[in-house]
Amino acid sequence: MSTTRGFEKVINYVLELIQSGNLKIGSELPSERQLTNILELSRNSVREGLRSLEDMGIIKSLHGSGNYISGSISENMQRSFESMILLRSISMKEIISFRKSIELSVYELAFENKNKTVYIEKLSVILKDFLSQPLEEQIKRDTKFHRLLVSMAENQILDIVMGSISKVYLDWVRDVLSDMDNLGMQHLHEAHLRIYKSLAEENKVEGIRAIEEHYSIIEKNVW
Amino acid sequence: MSTTRGFEKVINYVLELIQSGNLKIGSELPSERQLTNILELSRNSVREGLRSLEDMGIIKSLHGSGNYISGSISENMQRSFESMILLRSISMKEIISFRKSIELSVYELAFENKNKTVYIEKLSVILKDFLSQPLEEQIKRDTKFHRLLVSMAENQILDIVMGSISKVYLDWVRDVLSDMDNLGMQHLHEAHLRIYKSLAEENKVEGIRAIEEHYSIIEKNVW
Repeated sequence: MSTTRGFEKVINYVLELIQSGNLKIGSELPSERQLTNILELSRNSVREGLRSLEDMGIIKSLHGSGNYISGSISENMQRSFESMILLRSISMKEIISFRKSIELSVYELAFENKNKTVYIEKLSVILKDFLSQPLEEQIKRDTKFHRLLVSMAENQILDIVMGSISKVYLDWVRDVLSDMDNLGMQHLHEAHLRIYKSLAEENKVEGIRAIEEHYSIIEKNVW
Repeated sequence: MSTTRGFEKVINYVLELIQSGNLKIGSELPSERQLTNILELSRNSVREGLRSLEDMGIIKSLHGSGNYISGSISENMQRSFESMILLRSISMKEIISFRKSIELSVYELAFENKNKTVYIEKLSVILKDFLSQPLEEQIKRDTKFHRLLVSMAENQILDIVMGSISKVYLDWVRDVLSDMDNLGMQHLHEAHLRIYKSLAEENKVEGIRAIEEHYSIIEKNVW
């Protein structure tokens, strides 16, 4: 019991320092020894608490240097999603349905982005000569294309959530694209082109249709 | 360095047992003593690894009983989102924009749910006499209404993501509703009613319009 209370004291203490503005992103935490003295805890409890904070993505431990406030939670979420897939509590069907609906949201925000020209140029580079690339390069570009749409939406939460499931999704993209015949690949590429063009030509209705077409091609190839 | 490797060994060992099907949700983990022997680690390293697994939401530690595979990651994500808000790396504007776009996705999936009758009845109960309720009850019901829409979408990932930001969102809902005048509250309630009716009457276009109206009322009251 005392161990649990101990490590929670460390978490609460650090969260309070953040809340009060005494610790910001990049700030160095008090040392393990200092925390041991301030909180009157054992070294083990302090270490356990610091481990928790690192697992939450709140701090980053640099060996031989100390602990710093990082505020990067993407990796942490990614592991959580991975373990859920592993435990089979989320099905591929749910992931695809989730991806499709998020992508529609992402598209709407990307479409409204007033500085979209740079993104649109990058999309065009990714799609150039797509079909003549080797499979591994096609997989890479497919992922890049969808990640770029998310960046274009310029919403950090969407970015984190999509980034978190992207590793899980990548394995799945590899499976789907490896099994797909030439005609399927061509259709998928055409859907990507239509999404890109709809942004360049400011045709939202066409873009939403293209995303729906994109996922119906995938669904046809998965089931 | 050796401590880091130690705790990672524990994580990898447990993940392998899950991947091979030897540990499922509800399964009990080997005891700390057993892990110490199997992995040839110190008790401290084993404890640190178990703490990490618990932080990821993969195991649940029951005092005096042992560690069990839990596969519940919602709390963990919620804390991560909270700390990001705390660190001011996500703005309220982004949360609202995220909520709005996710809610549109949720609505589309909820609309397609073939077993939506039970949910629709529950929505109607929540909205009954809404305006004559005290503020705290209105806040509760507002949250319930939106959570129910998410359940209706029957997608676990959306559920986890929305559940994770709901505590953060709750504080914000309280602020917005407390500041809102009677007319504002009435408009918000009407938007909820329209969303509910659009589901009952299978009018998707009207539902999407009502969600957009809902968030434009909120945006008007926040900025």
